Formats: sequence, structure tokens, C-alpha cells
Amino acid sequence: LLVVLVSPRNPLNVGAAARALANFGCTRLTVVSPYAPHWREAQSAVGAPHVLENATVCATLAEAVSGCTLVIGTGTLSHRKAEQSVVLLPDLAGPVRNELQRGGSVALVFGPEKHGLTRDDLSWCHLLVEIPTDPLQPSMNLGQAVAVCLYELSTRAFPACDGSPAQTSIPCQPSPARNKTTPAAPSGNLDLLAGVIEQTMAAAGYSPASMHSANQHDLRLLLRRLAPNVRDSRRILGLFRRVLWRLQNGSKRD
Amino acid sequence: LLVVLVSPRNPLNVGAAARALANFGCTRLTVVSPYAPHWREAQSAVGAPHVLENATVCATLAEAVSGCTLVIGTGTLSHRKAEQSVVLLPDLAGPVRNELQRGGSVALVFGPEKHGLTRDDLSWCHLLVEIPTDPLQPSMNLGQAVAVCLYELSTRAFPACDGSPAQTSIPCQPSPARNKTTPAAPSGNLDLLAGVIEQTMAAAGYSPASMHSANQHDLRLLLRRLAPNVRDSRRILGLFRRVLWRLQNGSKRD
Repeated sequence: LLVVLVSPRNPLNVGAAARALANFGCTRLTVVSPYAPHWREAQSAVGAPHVLENATVCATLAEAVSGCTLVIGTGTLSHRKAEQSVVLLPDLAGPVRNELQRGGSVALVFGPEKHGLTRDDLSWCHLLVEIPTDPLQPSMNLGQAVAVCLYELSTRAFPACDGSPAQTSIPCQPSPARNKTTPAAPSGNLDLLAGVIEQTMAAAGYSPASMHSANQHDLRLLLRRLAPNVRDSRRILGLFRRVLWRLQNGSKRD
Repeated sequence: LLVVLVSPRNPLNVGAAARALANFGCTRLTVVSPYAPHWREAQSAVGAPHVLENATVCATLAEAVSGCTLVIGTGTLSHRKAEQSVVLLPDLAGPVRNELQRGGSVALVFGPEKHGLTRDDLSWCHLLVEIPTDPLQPSMNLGQAVAVCLYELSTRAFPACDGSPAQTSIPCQPSPARNKTTPAAPSGNLDLLAGVIEQTMAAAGYSPASMHSANQHDLRLLLRRLAPNVRDSRRILGLFRRVLWRLQNGSKRD
């Protein structure tokens, strides 16, 4: 399991999040685009957990999760309409266990303290998780949210990987159509595929340039809903590369 | 559910704990013997949750839990031998739900940041709960420990109070002998009873004064293991009062 913090501001929160990782036996932390002085402060704090020294820093969320096959966004989301499946935290163990059992790699993504994950951030997520909090005070402190999520997964998703049977009634599958035997294509493959499809759309004059950003967003979500396995995503990529090459070079050869 | 913080030091932790209460719909917070300047700072912090304004301050843990019928101490406890039953947090919902269903009142007690609850503090507890953390980094931040415990109870102990059937296989009952129909005697009644028994022991010359403190401790634990119901604790109290009066006044009358 990889934990990703997107643009955390408060060094105390970063330290608390790292401590929660250490408490629940997680070792992989990636921080996306942190505010540099605060990041240095968090890393150099007295008693900073080992996990903080070994943390990876990435410029973008896309880069941070490029190797992951199931990317889970966190937040209470009560104020916006979700574009993906939403699962409550007490029901998250099933999907995570399934993904790990089929050899996938799971990322849990936390947004900045003030606003949480943006709509753009969320478009890299296959699934959203909601911590069931009181509607009167829904927003959790970052370090506490990390602790609660990792507690839930460490006690209910990982022990079962050691041989007990998988949970049979999962309230929310990442996608019902998802192929259960071949590993899912990691996020980076989907981004590569999206890039070629976008170029193809542009080359084909599919839609005006003003729609470019909206199309990008929708395409990212679409690919994560489809959740192609590694082989299928390679096939689709090959197809679009061929089409793109035709669109760009066809006239010269014909 | 009452949350009790014993001698918290860091105002940020107090604020974080209070926020976790608000997040998970708990309203009752009691703070035992806080460090006054830090307590004022926590209460006056910008955006301090409502629960912090309404918090009760007590001088002793005994006073804080005097109205509670099930007092649960928290900590990792890995370094000391527990004198009570210990239950893992994922298994705590059952005992709490049972206690609430029989009309009892439950307190969850957290110790100071540095050392956790003392052996003396723990002697007021019927049951200890352990958060299953990594043995390499067992000690949790106070605010995060409160969040994790309240998340577990709010999602798994309270919903079932609204009508779903009680869990049948409870790994750890507070006491097998516990009467299931009459409400348990609250902590304050047990302290009152212990006081009269101690006086009786002293009046009877039961043990040297040097043993007084050890006897007090053992007596507290004994009464919590027995967990008498309200009526029985009243009966025992009556008996000891009578014996004590005899011991103190018998010679004058005989």
C-alpha cells in the first residue's frame, strides 16, 4: 500500500501522517508538490519517523500513482457529486484485499488540509472512499484521517491476505466489468494511453481546442471506469498509435 | 459515551482529540487535571470545536468516571502486564454495545502523551483496549488514538443500538459473572464501597498501614472484576457499614 499526500501545508500534519504509517506498518509514503520549507521542517523534526526520511517527492499526482492499479481518493465529498464509485471506509477492506490478491498495487490519496482533493486530482482515482463522519463536523484533520484509514485497512484488509477467504459480499466493486485474472494496467499506462488518444482526437479534429481540458478530464475518468488489464491497454494503445500515425502521415503516402 | 483525557499536556492534541469527538458525533468530553495554561490555550484556539467549550474538568479520574458503569482504559500496554481483561480495538464494539443496551454508561479513558495511563489510573478501569499497532512503532499520537477509537465505535458499536441484533460472539466480556439484567453499579458507587471496606480493614487491624496503598489498588481491581449491580453494591455497602460501626462502637456498647 502506498500513501500519497497531495500538497500538504502543515509540517505537523505531515509528521502525524508519517507516524500513523509507522504505527500501522506501512512504509511507502509519497508527497506530491509539498511546500518546500515546510517539507524540510517536517523531515528534520525531532523523532521524525523513518518513513519520512524514505518518502518520495513527486511533482504531480499522475507521477506518484503511475505504478498503481487501484487508486483510492479520500475525503468526505458531501459537498460535490462524485464522478466515480464511492465506498464507505468500513466497506473498503474488500476491494483493497481483492486488488492485492490479484497482484495489484494500491494507492490511498489524501488532499491538502484546506480543500481536500480537487476534481482534477480525483480524476486519477478509480474509487473514492468516504469516512463516515458527523454531518455537522464532516471535515477531519489530515493526520487523523490517515490514522483512521490505515487502522481500518491494517486490521481488516491485510490480515486476510494471509490465507483467510476473501470477503464475498463487497458493497462496491471498483468496476463490475473489471477482469479478475489479469493484473490491471497501472495508472501510468492509462495516462500514456490517454495521451495518444488525445493526440488522435486532436489530429482527427474531433472537438474544438476549447474542449481540450474537459475532454482530458472525462477521458481519464472513462479509462479508470473501463479499468483495462495490462494486455488490453497495450492493445488499445497500439490501435490508437496506428490511427494517429495514419492521421498525421496518411496524406503524404496516399 | 464519555471520553476522558487524563492530564493532557499539548494543547494541539487536546484540540485534535476534541475535533475527533465532533467528527464522530460524540459530545461528552472530560479532562482530568489538565495543565491550566495549556488547557486555556486549547479552549481559546481559533475554530475550537463546541465540544471543547462544554468540556468538564475534574481533579481526579475517580471523579470523572464516577457515573460510568463500564470504564475502558486505552494504550498499547505491550510493556506491562495487564491486571484486567484486554481486548483489541476491532473487538471492542460488542462489549460497548452490550453495556449501552443494558442501560449502562461507558467511558473511554486516554492517558497523558508521554507515559499513557498509570497503573493507578488503570485500576479504575473494568477493561483495557489495545489498538493493534506495529510492534516497531506501537505508541500513537493522542489525537490520532482518539480518532481511531471513536471511528471504530461510531461505525461498529452505535449503529447496532438502533435495532440490529447484538453481536453474539464477543471475544472478551468485561466479566463472565456480570449480571446481565440489572444495571451495573457506577464507578462512584464502587469507590464509596471501597472506602468503607478500607475503613473496615483498618478498624479490624487487617493489615499494617504500610500495605494501605497496595490494598487500595487491589481492592479497586477486585470490585471491578466482581462488577456488582447497583442493588448488590448497596447491599455489600450496608453490610460493611454495619461491621465498621460494630468495630468502632462495639466495645462501648457491649
